[in-house]
Amino acid sequence: VTAAVIAVGSELLRAGRSDTNAVWLTARLAALGVETVWRAAVEDDAARIARLVATALADARVVVMTGGLGPTDDDRTRAGLAEALGEPLERDAATEAAIAERFRRHGRVASPMQFRQADRPRGSSFIDNPIGSAPGILVERHGRVLAALPGVPAEMKAMFDASVAARIAASGLGGAALARRVLRVAGRPESFVEEAVGDLYATPGTDTTILSSAGLVDLVLSARGSTPQEAGERVARLEAAMRERLGRDVYGTGDDTLASVAGRLLAERGATVAVGESCTGGLLGGAFTDVPGSSRWFRGGIVAYADDVKTALAGVSPDVLRAHGAVSEEVARALAGGARRAFRAEIGLGVTGIAGPEGGTPEKPVGTVHLALDDGGPGRALRLDWPGDRDLIRRRAVAVALDLLRRHLIAP
Amino acid sequence: VTAAVIAVGSELLRAGRSDTNAVWLTARLAALGVETVWRAAVEDDAARIARLVATALADARVVVMTGGLGPTDDDRTRAGLAEALGEPLERDAATEAAIAERFRRHGRVASPMQFRQADRPRGSSFIDNPIGSAPGILVERHGRVLAALPGVPAEMKAMFDASVAARIAASGLGGAALARRVLRVAGRPESFVEEAVGDLYATPGTDTTILSSAGLVDLVLSARGSTPQEAGERVARLEAAMRERLGRDVYGTGDDTLASVAGRLLAERGATVAVGESCTGGLLGGAFTDVPGSSRWFRGGIVAYADDVKTALAGVSPDVLRAHGAVSEEVARALAGGARRAFRAEIGLGVTGIAGPEGGTPEKPVGTVHLALDDGGPGRALRLDWPGDRDLIRRRAVAVALDLLRRHLIAP
Repeated sequence: VTAAVIAVGSELLRAGRSDTNAVWLTARLAALGVETVWRAAVEDDAARIARLVATALADARVVVMTGGLGPTDDDRTRAGLAEALGEPLERDAATEAAIAERFRRHGRVASPMQFRQADRPRGSSFIDNPIGSAPGILVERHGRVLAALPGVPAEMKAMFDASVAARIAASGLGGAALARRVLRVAGRPESFVEEAVGDLYATPGTDTTILSSAGLVDLVLSARGSTPQEAGERVARLEAAMRERLGRDVYGTGDDTLASVAGRLLAERGATVAVGESCTGGLLGGAFTDVPGSSRWFRGGIVAYADDVKTALAGVSPDVLRAHGAVSEEVARALAGGARRAFRAEIGLGVTGIAGPEGGTPEKPVGTVHLALDDGGPGRALRLDWPGDRDLIRRRAVAVALDLLRRHLIAP
Repeated sequence: VTAAVIAVGSELLRAGRSDTNAVWLTARLAALGVETVWRAAVEDDAARIARLVATALADARVVVMTGGLGPTDDDRTRAGLAEALGEPLERDAATEAAIAERFRRHGRVASPMQFRQADRPRGSSFIDNPIGSAPGILVERHGRVLAALPGVPAEMKAMFDASVAARIAASGLGGAALARRVLRVAGRPESFVEEAVGDLYATPGTDTTILSSAGLVDLVLSARGSTPQEAGERVARLEAAMRERLGRDVYGTGDDTLASVAGRLLAERGATVAVGESCTGGLLGGAFTDVPGSSRWFRGGIVAYADDVKTALAGVSPDVLRAHGAVSEEVARALAGGARRAFRAEIGLGVTGIAGPEGGTPEKPVGTVHLALDDGGPGRALRLDWPGDRDLIRRRAVAVALDLLRRHLIAP
């Protein structure tokens, strides 16, 4: 079952404003087994609201709106709904009386404007507002449910949970149980992952989305079933099939990060890590220490940005630096070994590269990064040479360094 | 002139995800004098994308899309656009050749899937992507402009600024002249800044938005005028009035960051900086080295995460550590002095704190952070004790450390 969510209010389209109400509704609908196919924020304009509502009713079985139900001229949801449905607005006498009574109780007289909140499109009904004054509007037609709720978050949330959720369930629109799983993949480009598992996207009753960012790929799996158990088993089977194809490229699930997974592996082995960074400037240490409790397995690091710092403090010999240049496998290995020894860790990681925009040469263009791992034995090293801007090159180098450590810990 | 913004990607509709790309585009369009009338996020479904695009073309003169332009089966923007426009997709030979060449340069062979990025609806043109692989698509018809950009934020932003903004202006769709200025403020909470300058928001012909994040506040000023000069003078007057109220709390404008401003001040003075970090774990060094050319004034740093590292490598004496504890002004000062001396810099910065979620005590709750600056003289120190989650506490500590350096360089 599908839903569209429409947030109404010109203020939502001001610079810097986000759509927190609509994000909340999306999550709540998902919990009911209803999948949001689109979400929009629209200004206070009846014609535009009407066009989006019409599009929503064509696209989805459930439509939830929020905002635009107050009594002022700016509140256009009622008019937009009436236009989209092709029904006139009618004033409800009981609601009108309730508004008058509420004002009387507070020693005031309701202005004519206040009574607009008693208007609703013919054939619709009101949704009780247990907190504020604006009632919601419920439309049910042709097997579809449309609920318009106020924009005040507390009112919207209370009314959705108290009335709309039950209405969706009672209409038989509440779906099917839904189970979700995120598989996190490192060390492979998106296109490689897609070719490896793409045919599994068509697994009946499931849905897969692939996302990539700075060298990491996420596979977001969801599965439906008539019961939570059936949905759970289906997503577990899909996950198992994908894991069989991807093997060790899968580094985790859910909220796992490369750093948290590497940290868990270190803790299990009673080992610690230290870093020697040049082009990443501290971001690798920053990623490790993003993990709560990382002090148990992260010793520290040295940021050796200037060349004389590399030789004076980070364990790189002047001869190696001269012979191979600062961006070289030899210097990455020296940074890794230097960090391991200085911080008395079991494992050292070293990173040196050219993040740009300046400093590239024909042999070592911007994007060239050397990474190394030193564990006192032969260790590991690798070279990246993907282009990108400074930020991307640095974030990718951090991800690859973390993955180098993870793979080493799994299969030394 | 009106715009609609459509972000494409099923991941945008997952629980907890917001529409940051679309929010950015809304702000940028406003700066061009174009008002966004609605903004939507839609799943990877060609038919739904097509219906929203059709609604957008009915509602607005400018349509900007982001996402769904990658090479995989999930990327449906091209198909949705073709359906909405009623035009077939055609493959562009030059773009096809460029894709093949890019893969060849990196020693790889492009898979057939990759060439999908050379497809565009008949009658449209490509928008150059200076950073990544996916070109954008530009459609101009019946006095309307539609631009489809990639979902990767850096690519989307670069392409909007480099190509789409100019196209909107050239089409005569840009409204009255608009001038824009972002004032960046450090060291003050949002409420303080709002009280200092709030009355200026009402300056005729101008619009001000206040945004805050991790201890920093941005004031986004815009002004309209019948000519660019008039708009420019108006925004300059508003900026001057705000600067008079805020003084040295304004650290920069536009793309300035605290690190880039501090770096500029260091370079002007021929001085260098080094860092000794504990709770920030390398993020302070990461912030400095985010600035291109930072090797001229950033020497390096030590991440002294474990206590014995603080004493063995980072210049903290065991007596000081024992007497005051790792999270103390004395240890922050020792880290700053240790970094200054070890890296032979003019200035050292030290940070130590409790980022949580564990490790807090009644005297030193989570969020306690001590920062220090050492220049060989009396130096500076300060203590933060604002609550927050681990990420916020660390990012705020980085911002305050950078601001401590900036203020010291302005008024030693």
